[in-house]
Amino acid sequence: MHTIRKESLEEKISTFSQFGKNENGGITRLSLSKAALDARAEFIKRCLELGMEIKTDDMANIYATKKGTENLPAIVMGSHIDSVSNGGNYDGVLGVLAGLETVETLITHNITTRHPITVMIWTNEEGARFEPAMMSSGVITGKFSKAAMLASLDRSHITFEQALEQSGYKGEEKKRLNPDEYAGYLELHIEQGPILENNSKEIGIVEGVAGMVNYEFTIKGVSDHAGTTPQDSRKDALLSASRLITKLWDKLSAIDSTLVFTIGRFNLQPNIHTVIPEQAVFTLDARHKDPMIIQKVMEILSTLPSEESGCSVSLKRLWSRETIHFHKKFTEVLQKSSDKLGYPSMRLYSGAGHDAQYTADFMPSAMLFVPSAEGHSHCPEEYTDIGSIVKGTNVLLHALLEIDRIL
Amino acid sequence: MHTIRKESLEEKISTFSQFGKNENGGITRLSLSKAALDARAEFIKRCLELGMEIKTDDMANIYATKKGTENLPAIVMGSHIDSVSNGGNYDGVLGVLAGLETVETLITHNITTRHPITVMIWTNEEGARFEPAMMSSGVITGKFSKAAMLASLDRSHITFEQALEQSGYKGEEKKRLNPDEYAGYLELHIEQGPILENNSKEIGIVEGVAGMVNYEFTIKGVSDHAGTTPQDSRKDALLSASRLITKLWDKLSAIDSTLVFTIGRFNLQPNIHTVIPEQAVFTLDARHKDPMIIQKVMEILSTLPSEESGCSVSLKRLWSRETIHFHKKFTEVLQKSSDKLGYPSMRLYSGAGHDAQYTADFMPSAMLFVPSAEGHSHCPEEYTDIGSIVKGTNVLLHALLEIDRIL
Repeated sequence: MHTIRKESLEEKISTFSQFGKNENGGITRLSLSKAALDARAEFIKRCLELGMEIKTDDMANIYATKKGTENLPAIVMGSHIDSVSNGGNYDGVLGVLAGLETVETLITHNITTRHPITVMIWTNEEGARFEPAMMSSGVITGKFSKAAMLASLDRSHITFEQALEQSGYKGEEKKRLNPDEYAGYLELHIEQGPILENNSKEIGIVEGVAGMVNYEFTIKGVSDHAGTTPQDSRKDALLSASRLITKLWDKLSAIDSTLVFTIGRFNLQPNIHTVIPEQAVFTLDARHKDPMIIQKVMEILSTLPSEESGCSVSLKRLWSRETIHFHKKFTEVLQKSSDKLGYPSMRLYSGAGHDAQYTADFMPSAMLFVPSAEGHSHCPEEYTDIGSIVKGTNVLLHALLEIDRIL
Repeated sequence: MHTIRKESLEEKISTFSQFGKNENGGITRLSLSKAALDARAEFIKRCLELGMEIKTDDMANIYATKKGTENLPAIVMGSHIDSVSNGGNYDGVLGVLAGLETVETLITHNITTRHPITVMIWTNEEGARFEPAMMSSGVITGKFSKAAMLASLDRSHITFEQALEQSGYKGEEKKRLNPDEYAGYLELHIEQGPILENNSKEIGIVEGVAGMVNYEFTIKGVSDHAGTTPQDSRKDALLSASRLITKLWDKLSAIDSTLVFTIGRFNLQPNIHTVIPEQAVFTLDARHKDPMIIQKVMEILSTLPSEESGCSVSLKRLWSRETIHFHKKFTEVLQKSSDKLGYPSMRLYSGAGHDAQYTADFMPSAMLFVPSAEGHSHCPEEYTDIGSIVKGTNVLLHALLEIDRIL
């Protein structure tokens, strides 16, 4: 049974860890930044050395394709190489390198496939430089307006369009991933959570992506001078927000132990140490695969009092997504490949969003996870043992060959 | 008994409200901005029309002086014309206009004084554009290093030094306020709190400036993915901060009902809606005229647990100031002038900082307050009734004449 080479994959991970390396061991490789462009160049160099053909589409997504023996649509293995600020060395890039390693293994062992095999890099999955996340897969699958995306600004007021033009990777719209030229999509990714580790599993067969709701809260108080306004006549938006967050945490925690929710962004105005805060705006993100649990979150939010500590409380839903289910035949193939290789695996839903949730709309798609040590991701501590990575990539290789056989 | 003219003072307030006017009725007149330079030009034009002599010092403080009949040092009435972002029409500028009106009244009534009379504008009192507040009085009285102040950056990365050079108001160091050429300092200001209004008083005789302590808290948690990290394994810096702030509020509120404390600045990292907050940094400002009350605040802070909700809690003292007491003879003169005019007054300590607290170091200094409607300041709602303003300015005029007589 063919397996991929550990040393070869280790070398790739190590090399790509240099692009955007931070002093603390983490990575800052924002989409279309110098570091991300360097990583793209390295990827393309290696693909060309393997005799693959390179295309890019109008969102600068890269498609590197190895020919098949028959005139069939390609099977795609993809992920992204951009990271969040001060992120880790595995989120995204591992799926690209596992795909590349898989193709190298085919070539090394002279394994031919009926279908062409494409390794793909998605542009701006993280949304850390240009909001929103999963921008390119969202555009390709009609979730986002391309015009709105092109206008998205980074913190230096550069538009995504400008970054796209300057990248040298902008290609034609007709080169986009499409169901006529591509038969299906597989993505290997780190779990970004502790479930596999806690259950002593090395492979996660991802059944889908959990549904989520996103809200924005606005707390309005009155801004006054810190030194002169008696405590009992204040309407302090930060005190109000602190009490509300504390209560909200208790209420939401009581719904279900597997519900995850996060208040990740919190901005105060005017945010001056000598001025009583007038306004606090914060987000709430809640995720669960069961729509009934998400419904309970929404019910709790709809019954919140409109006042807290003298300040008004209002909230609006920013967006939501239904739970997405991956292609049953593909997840079965992944499961069987893992079982055949003798790896301990489990089924789970992804709490994080991935480009595969959008490709699932228009072609058979599936994902597999490898464990994240202590569940960390989006931070320098993000880590996956090379043993697990090799196992995950072997599952990818064998699933690919099986899909090539049955499709 | 001479009194100032309401219509004349009203016109001044109305005219100066145009410099930096916002759509919502407030003012944004940051130090040395176009709006502030326009206000300076208007002030100087009016002073020159009154036959006053203009000087500026190396911090661009403006001194407009009307001659006295004897060879004596000048008596100064001063305040500032800069505002915070989206501030009000009275904080600072009122003290300058009351001084100008007082000089106009002297001239209109042909009242001569033994001492020269100076109306002064301090540069950058608010510290809203260039930190810290009371920058120029701090430099002149040796509180701040001038070199450090010159390097202070605004949000556009312009240094205070650049703004100073470009303003056209930079003069010589030897022109600074000094005890040889100036005999004393009076400042009329809005209260910026509700105490006068709550006590139905129109004049506040300010006995001093309350002592304060300033702390910075740092809460450190672990940054992880919002969608994948189970709730019970999180170390969420925002949850921790919210709980800590709620507890802190209750503990500090219990010390004394006249203690004021504020958490005005709060910054989260990485502040991304899909990432569990890793770090929260916030300030605490606490003020009271009684050092024993401030001591109790510090004792509570020193006994805080070093952990809250799984996150580490650390704090450091940023700065503090002792309670400052104004010149007894001057406050007596202000009190007697108010009594003579038959105005309801009360003694109080300022919770806010003022340039007068620094001048008090090297010359007799005192302040009087006029009421702030509902205690608001640093906001468009900041308001003082013209009736109270006229009364306050009359007290200033008569105190000035009495000081001129007795000094």
